[in-house]
Amino acid sequence: MTSPTQNRIGIDLGGTNIKLGRVENGRVVERFEIPTEHDADVCLAALVEQVKRLSPDAAPMQIGVGLPGVIDLERSRVVDAPNLTFLVDLPLADLLSEACACPVILENDANVAALGEAKCGAGQNHPDFLFVTLGTGVGGGLIFDGSLFHGPGGMAGEFGHLTVGHDRLCGCGALGCLEAIASARAMETLAAQSLGCALPLKDLASAAREGDQDALAVFHTAGACLGEALAQVTLLLDLRVYLFGGGGGPVLDLLRKPALLVLQQRCFGRKMDNFQLLSAELGNDAGLLGAAYLGQA
Amino acid sequence: MTSPTQNRIGIDLGGTNIKLGRVENGRVVERFEIPTEHDADVCLAALVEQVKRLSPDAAPMQIGVGLPGVIDLERSRVVDAPNLTFLVDLPLADLLSEACACPVILENDANVAALGEAKCGAGQNHPDFLFVTLGTGVGGGLIFDGSLFHGPGGMAGEFGHLTVGHDRLCGCGALGCLEAIASARAMETLAAQSLGCALPLKDLASAAREGDQDALAVFHTAGACLGEALAQVTLLLDLRVYLFGGGGGPVLDLLRKPALLVLQQRCFGRKMDNFQLLSAELGNDAGLLGAAYLGQA
Repeated sequence: MTSPTQNRIGIDLGGTNIKLGRVENGRVVERFEIPTEHDADVCLAALVEQVKRLSPDAAPMQIGVGLPGVIDLERSRVVDAPNLTFLVDLPLADLLSEACACPVILENDANVAALGEAKCGAGQNHPDFLFVTLGTGVGGGLIFDGSLFHGPGGMAGEFGHLTVGHDRLCGCGALGCLEAIASARAMETLAAQSLGCALPLKDLASAAREGDQDALAVFHTAGACLGEALAQVTLLLDLRVYLFGGGGGPVLDLLRKPALLVLQQRCFGRKMDNFQLLSAELGNDAGLLGAAYLGQA
Repeated sequence: MTSPTQNRIGIDLGGTNIKLGRVENGRVVERFEIPTEHDADVCLAALVEQVKRLSPDAAPMQIGVGLPGVIDLERSRVVDAPNLTFLVDLPLADLLSEACACPVILENDANVAALGEAKCGAGQNHPDFLFVTLGTGVGGGLIFDGSLFHGPGGMAGEFGHLTVGHDRLCGCGALGCLEAIASARAMETLAAQSLGCALPLKDLASAAREGDQDALAVFHTAGACLGEALAQVTLLLDLRVYLFGGGGGPVLDLLRKPALLVLQQRCFGRKMDNFQLLSAELGNDAGLLGAAYLGQA
């Protein structure tokens, strides 16, 4: 039987699927995946049902939920979530807490992944780092002294919207955001424009590793812009460790050199080898694991 | 006789003058000012002499020293200081500590001023803020939960070198730094170029307040660039309070509106009235007071 001090449940609540897992000693020991029903009552009932499957004998010690959206300062409501609009402004944590008889904490999905890497992945030996997720967008999560940093307004870590000096329009409505040039999707768009054909990021990376100059140029551009954004973070916080996950994580080898060159150029008093640009280790499990560890001291 | 728990000495060690003060209950109760002798032995002897004048009956509880330079992680050596080269790499804290028989902590001058405002000035009611000094350059000091944040590399808070999208060369060797367009000196240079005559910042501000369009344009440009840099900080840390000191502090009224407009535009989910852009309160005493409170829990 599971020890009650270990019985933590993590939920990765996406726009398409929901993953739920019971986590013990930094590993997912049991998991389920269900489609996301875009109706609050139906979705909530499904969550409660799966939690009971994961913890049939007793209430869980805690449930953590990571989701793509802005969470309130109390970590109990969704303030904004373009792909989960049916959850906005619901007292989600309270409803789930009552139904499952345990504390529930909500968190932004990039923050949750950052915490997962901090507790169980590539960040375990690094007390302070920025986790960057390169996916459809670019997200970020700040870890200071092993814990998530939310900032006084609660929305810290919006790394993807730092300005990096180009004139492309970002989904947020501003010009020049990192996300509009270095997300996995933006790199594919850049490639489609310069190569004249649509290639998934993985194939684009293969072409670059084989020496294709057009493909290399895409990663050079995205990497230099990534370096500009990392330089802003470094100047402000003097972090030295950056972790990269998401769909773009596996192309870090192609982004690292141009990013480090810009970092060295902009951050006086620091050299390229002062920085560690590392791949995240947990892949798709970062969300489940991080969610399970939310609120842990 | 001074209570030993109160007997803190702050030193503001500049390239031209050194100010020293005994601080009690958040006020400078006795102070001296001497010229900076650019020789390590002579300077050190002068510091020790003045400390003994300030604390004749007993060793001080602590001495804090703020200076314009990069300090090592142990806060005991000067790593780089263009205007105090004679102090670089000396074991300055140890030498002073031995001569004065008390602990000595070194700190960057912008950080010291930030701490002064946090403990005794405009930051007293704000646990988290960025202090910005607009002077010859642009400096910054981050206060989280009432304490200075140094970052893992020890050099956090270099706000003046965030990129804000112009093509002027900064003294650090990079293009587009905030410092190259919004320092007190840079605003005077901008004005000299557009008005065709050299005006001190104070007179330029008077002209702008009387409606001079060329003068207003200078503050509009600098304020918008300031807003770009504040937006980077807000996206990353979600701070809501920013304090402004230095020679450019008194022109905050002219910079505030263009800065807030950019902040609102770039930081989705936040409005202009979510932010407080405030004037620092301690003026030239921020350095002395902050130095006296270094290392205090």
